[in-house]
Amino acid sequence: MAQATTLPRNETGIATALGILKQRFGDNFQTGQAIREQHGHTTTWIVNQAPDGVVFPQSTGEVAEIVRICAAHKVPVIPFGTGTSLEGHINAPAGGISVDVSRMDKVLAVHPEDLQVVVQPGVTREALNTHLRDKGLFFPIDPGANASLGGMTATRASGTTAVRYGTMKDNVLALEVVMADGSVIRTASRAKKSSAGYDLTRLMVGSEGTLGLITEITLRLQGIPEAISAARCSFPDVDAACRAAMTAIQFGLPVARIELLDVLSVRAINTYSKLGLPEEPLLLVEFHGSEAGVIEQIETFRAIAEEVGGRGYEAAATPEDRNRLWKARHDAYWAMQTLRPGTKAFATDVCVPISRLAECVTAAQDKLAELGLLGPIAGHVGDGNFHAALLVDMENAGERDRADEFVGWLNDLAISMEGTCTGEHGIGQGKMPYLARELGPATAWMAAVKRALDPDNILNPGKIVTL
Amino acid sequence: MAQATTLPRNETGIATALGILKQRFGDNFQTGQAIREQHGHTTTWIVNQAPDGVVFPQSTGEVAEIVRICAAHKVPVIPFGTGTSLEGHINAPAGGISVDVSRMDKVLAVHPEDLQVVVQPGVTREALNTHLRDKGLFFPIDPGANASLGGMTATRASGTTAVRYGTMKDNVLALEVVMADGSVIRTASRAKKSSAGYDLTRLMVGSEGTLGLITEITLRLQGIPEAISAARCSFPDVDAACRAAMTAIQFGLPVARIELLDVLSVRAINTYSKLGLPEEPLLLVEFHGSEAGVIEQIETFRAIAEEVGGRGYEAAATPEDRNRLWKARHDAYWAMQTLRPGTKAFATDVCVPISRLAECVTAAQDKLAELGLLGPIAGHVGDGNFHAALLVDMENAGERDRADEFVGWLNDLAISMEGTCTGEHGIGQGKMPYLARELGPATAWMAAVKRALDPDNILNPGKIVTL
Repeated sequence: MAQATTLPRNETGIATALGILKQRFGDNFQTGQAIREQHGHTTTWIVNQAPDGVVFPQSTGEVAEIVRICAAHKVPVIPFGTGTSLEGHINAPAGGISVDVSRMDKVLAVHPEDLQVVVQPGVTREALNTHLRDKGLFFPIDPGANASLGGMTATRASGTTAVRYGTMKDNVLALEVVMADGSVIRTASRAKKSSAGYDLTRLMVGSEGTLGLITEITLRLQGIPEAISAARCSFPDVDAACRAAMTAIQFGLPVARIELLDVLSVRAINTYSKLGLPEEPLLLVEFHGSEAGVIEQIETFRAIAEEVGGRGYEAAATPEDRNRLWKARHDAYWAMQTLRPGTKAFATDVCVPISRLAECVTAAQDKLAELGLLGPIAGHVGDGNFHAALLVDMENAGERDRADEFVGWLNDLAISMEGTCTGEHGIGQGKMPYLARELGPATAWMAAVKRALDPDNILNPGKIVTL
Repeated sequence: MAQATTLPRNETGIATALGILKQRFGDNFQTGQAIREQHGHTTTWIVNQAPDGVVFPQSTGEVAEIVRICAAHKVPVIPFGTGTSLEGHINAPAGGISVDVSRMDKVLAVHPEDLQVVVQPGVTREALNTHLRDKGLFFPIDPGANASLGGMTATRASGTTAVRYGTMKDNVLALEVVMADGSVIRTASRAKKSSAGYDLTRLMVGSEGTLGLITEITLRLQGIPEAISAARCSFPDVDAACRAAMTAIQFGLPVARIELLDVLSVRAINTYSKLGLPEEPLLLVEFHGSEAGVIEQIETFRAIAEEVGGRGYEAAATPEDRNRLWKARHDAYWAMQTLRPGTKAFATDVCVPISRLAECVTAAQDKLAELGLLGPIAGHVGDGNFHAALLVDMENAGERDRADEFVGWLNDLAISMEGTCTGEHGIGQGKMPYLARELGPATAWMAAVKRALDPDNILNPGKIVTL
């Protein structure tokens, strides 16, 4: 796989920085091979490019100090949350220092009256929700993995609940960021809305560590809904399932989640999670609201689904039933990999206008069949976003090439449908060529922003834009 | 008033550009004094600084041509929508060319299945909603004025419905922008969400014409709700009204609008709009949803309001009643000015965390009394945003100074409460000193972004950041 280009290394600078960091951070700075490799890319078939050292700061001040040391010697700085990114975001193609924020894991302030929380970047979404549970509040964004909130902010993550609650761009109110020269800024106040100058918050959200290191995040929270209802419904084909999702969205139904699983995915979770779902394309839906509201909504959804051929509709009778179903959905990525043991999985991430979704998913299934590839599909279909999890025998060069062909073909198809090559996984190293195809001349202005904020290109170099 | 600083003029460049533009655009280029003054700031007490000429492009290509001409001669370019901005955004402190997009007023495409529309920047929000009416769709953002969608995008506008539907940042999906060198970019695809590189869309939203000229906007739409309910409720004081708003938001009640009017504002609209509302602090609320849903919600609101002393609760019996009430709210800015004929109005725009709102509004009222100023207050209190409309006798130097003192005092108070000096009006010229106080070191990085995207500082110079 060609996605992980190597960049020139500043050997002298790196050697000097390693010495200074060792002296300054002692055991909180590690250079063993195993730990370095764990801090390079490990989740997909993109090559692992380990950093030269891993530092574990415990405060904003320490992050700023690390950046100042690296800036003085022009050494790359690569922020690391939990390492669950999928496009090589944390690789070190020019070497450098991985800044692992896992020890910056404090919830700094909860503002229940404002429905806000302030966290350090190493807090994971599950840890945050555990912390909030007894306050009647929750943070809704759910990318599946128990990612860090810093990482989720940096990749503009979303997931199953984005259809109702938006993505990280909609749920981050303000950030504290260490910039390329080691200075510390706040991007915004805690006001719910603002017209105060350029939106540095949104510029940082999704910048994948290439414009600054996030050291504090102010997030919007939601009250835990009075009632939650969930249901599943099978369909004769993915086209019908997609049409049901589209109609629900157009109708303005406030779905909190609406997820598609194709036949292969249903088969995978049936085996992995010991369920007995019909082996047909499946929609899973959830509604959040008042007792009366969610009952009305779930009945409306049933009518919409059955109108386009939905069958075997079943509402979750108990919270346990509901949780089992969503647990299975969350485990789908792992379940899929058991469909073909010994293979490596790689998830595509296109997102298209919902009017083109059925056509896009169907074309993807046809193309997978044509290329003889196994790629179960699951998707956040209320947003027009779906993943094909390619299960590839990495020893088989021909199959690898066909998988590459599929990824390129699908990204180009989505772009031709006025969609994007990445709904939520980000660009990293893997999608850099597609970003250029998708946004063309705009990427030159992204590069101009990058050069302005990081003139020496020390912040996570080799990601998003070519300089 | 000191807010409108003059910048050095490039007389030679301006003279050359005027000649070229006249030759190229003929009658679509105007230099008469009246039209030039109409294209400078006219809405508040900030001094009018007219541009040297006004051009009326009809296409993106023409905008690009104008920018290329001005770029070649280093002449300022100032985009103009309807001229309803409030902080001197359209002034020409260094002279230059006003680019009036009012003839770029086409709705280019409606995508009903995707709940999206593509418009030129000169389309006003009312024109758009008229266009959409028979499709069962609407665009919810409502700043009061019938502003252009280009201007609303450029100032990150919001208004009465932001509490439910967000601000322009949440409702602009993608932009076409003419950059400082005259090149044209698209910032994003039509996908509902994306992690494709830096969020240039959000960087342009709220950039007030200083980073590029918006020539096309892809907007999210909403289905017209099945049911709308509205109500009003009076309160013994603004503190109680603010607490009712805060409780409704915390409770997760999906209010579509929740607006506060203080006693002075109620008195003003009673006279102006011939209503007989009790002269007490008032909340106006609206709910959008299903028939059953809005009934449930409005009853919940009533309970919340009465819990904190709300009285005289009255639901609008008919759509006509509802519309009359909201029309009066929209006319409040004009109504307030009739409270003291012969004065100029100037609206403050602070926004604070909702937990601090009651305290902030009450302190503002006390300060107005202390300074002997007349300043009726109205607010989008679900967002923590409110306006005091200062009614100032401009011939009275002492009163002008006290008004200036109040503006500075209130902005600083909001900033000290972790809020912002501007919830929705923007920085323009008037709030530049407060932006620096609010975000401090971040403004230096805003300036770095500005220099990167507009190295010759020709795009709306003298606004937002000092270079």
